[in-house]
Amino acid sequence: MKKKKKKVNAAILIIGNEILSGRTQDKNTAFISNWLNINCGITVLEVRIIPDVENIIIENIKNLSKRFNYVFTTGGIGPTHDDITAISISKAFKLKYSFNKEAYKILENYYGKTKFNDGRKKMAKMPLKAKLIYNPSSAAPGFITKNVISLPGVPSILNSMIENCKRYLVKGSKVHSKTLNLYTVESNISHSLGLVQKKYLKSVDIGSYPFFRLGKIGVSIVSRSTSKSELLKVNKEILKIIKSKKIKILNI
Amino acid sequence: MKKKKKKVNAAILIIGNEILSGRTQDKNTAFISNWLNINCGITVLEVRIIPDVENIIIENIKNLSKRFNYVFTTGGIGPTHDDITAISISKAFKLKYSFNKEAYKILENYYGKTKFNDGRKKMAKMPLKAKLIYNPSSAAPGFITKNVISLPGVPSILNSMIENCKRYLVKGSKVHSKTLNLYTVESNISHSLGLVQKKYLKSVDIGSYPFFRLGKIGVSIVSRSTSKSELLKVNKEILKIIKSKKIKILNI
Repeated sequence: MKKKKKKVNAAILIIGNEILSGRTQDKNTAFISNWLNINCGITVLEVRIIPDVENIIIENIKNLSKRFNYVFTTGGIGPTHDDITAISISKAFKLKYSFNKEAYKILENYYGKTKFNDGRKKMAKMPLKAKLIYNPSSAAPGFITKNVISLPGVPSILNSMIENCKRYLVKGSKVHSKTLNLYTVESNISHSLGLVQKKYLKSVDIGSYPFFRLGKIGVSIVSRSTSKSELLKVNKEILKIIKSKKIKILNI
Repeated sequence: MKKKKKKVNAAILIIGNEILSGRTQDKNTAFISNWLNINCGITVLEVRIIPDVENIIIENIKNLSKRFNYVFTTGGIGPTHDDITAISISKAFKLKYSFNKEAYKILENYYGKTKFNDGRKKMAKMPLKAKLIYNPSSAAPGFITKNVISLPGVPSILNSMIENCKRYLVKGSKVHSKTLNLYTVESNISHSLGLVQKKYLKSVDIGSYPFFRLGKIGVSIVSRSTSKSELLKVNKEILKIIKSKKIKILNI
């Protein structure tokens, strides 16, 4: 992993009609975002889900790669006609779309010369000078083009590859969090919580999320900060509010 | 529901740090997208997930409301400090952010005058002239501002409200789909499938999605079209390919 910076951010671009149509539930956003925060101190600031349409992919790659330190794409790097992520990224960056020799070798070894058909060969085609992200579960590599990291859409394969992205990433400061699960309703604490947020506006993000559990209504208060000490201060203030309102805590 | 148009599209804007951070798994995208297609013939063409930050919400509302027939927002309409969807939409459209009398009455009736505190009152504040989307499960209404429909983030509440959006929507042509689940690998059929897609490029979308089930690898071929007859033609051609390659079908 590269040298540490203070704030490093990323966007995720989910490419695939099957996610947009609701046929498939996206699981990659939560996985990548959690992994980036815990392992790399990188914060995901935007996610987009778009269809398998070349000009739309190109436009989004251009936009997101300019605005964020890293862009993670998922989907569209397989062997079929609707897998157009690699060619679209090549066009977005005006790079030649051609066979990557190393990827070609990896795939040829994996399938054996006789079974290495055109569809499989396509998975070795990518933007010129892209660097590979190795795939321990099904060989076909992902790749990094400038600041864009392209991974497959199948969650189990993506999950097996994610550690291999680390070497290309600059590390940021980890975001720490504290959660308080309370048996109350949001509007009971919204005013006091708002005041605490105002006081710590620059250092801590406080989120309030209602939940239903075992027939009871509750609220999760999640505070997040890169500073552990500021986080503890906020947590103390919230605990004070909870005590004064005699609210039951589910866990600390 | 309003008069029928041929092609009607929508975007979904998921507002919430908890989704971006990976703490909470988004379930609203798949639900809204499926519901819109099946019940209204409306196709979701883009989804964005963004943080609870006012200028980011404003910018995205402006962008998406111009480019799509409808924008569905989820999250940020509760009583706490991080619920800023209504004020942000007001600013995006330069509309006054003020109490909606009907919403105020609904909430006052629901909570009773003594328990109708400031946090709860906030849920009656919205862009001027917004129309209400009734909430049968927890009273606080959603609202529609121009072509932007704002719903809560909690899936069970959102699901209970979705039918109440119908009266504001123009109906489009339903997208029909056919799925073939095959015991094969993508690269075995990618070439032939690509040729079928080329032939029916304008009328049918063919998607290919690998899966793992009971330890076996397979591929789901999903064809989607607003024309049933074109869809049947494509399905016939794919079945021919499957037969010629002696691939086992899991279900039709």
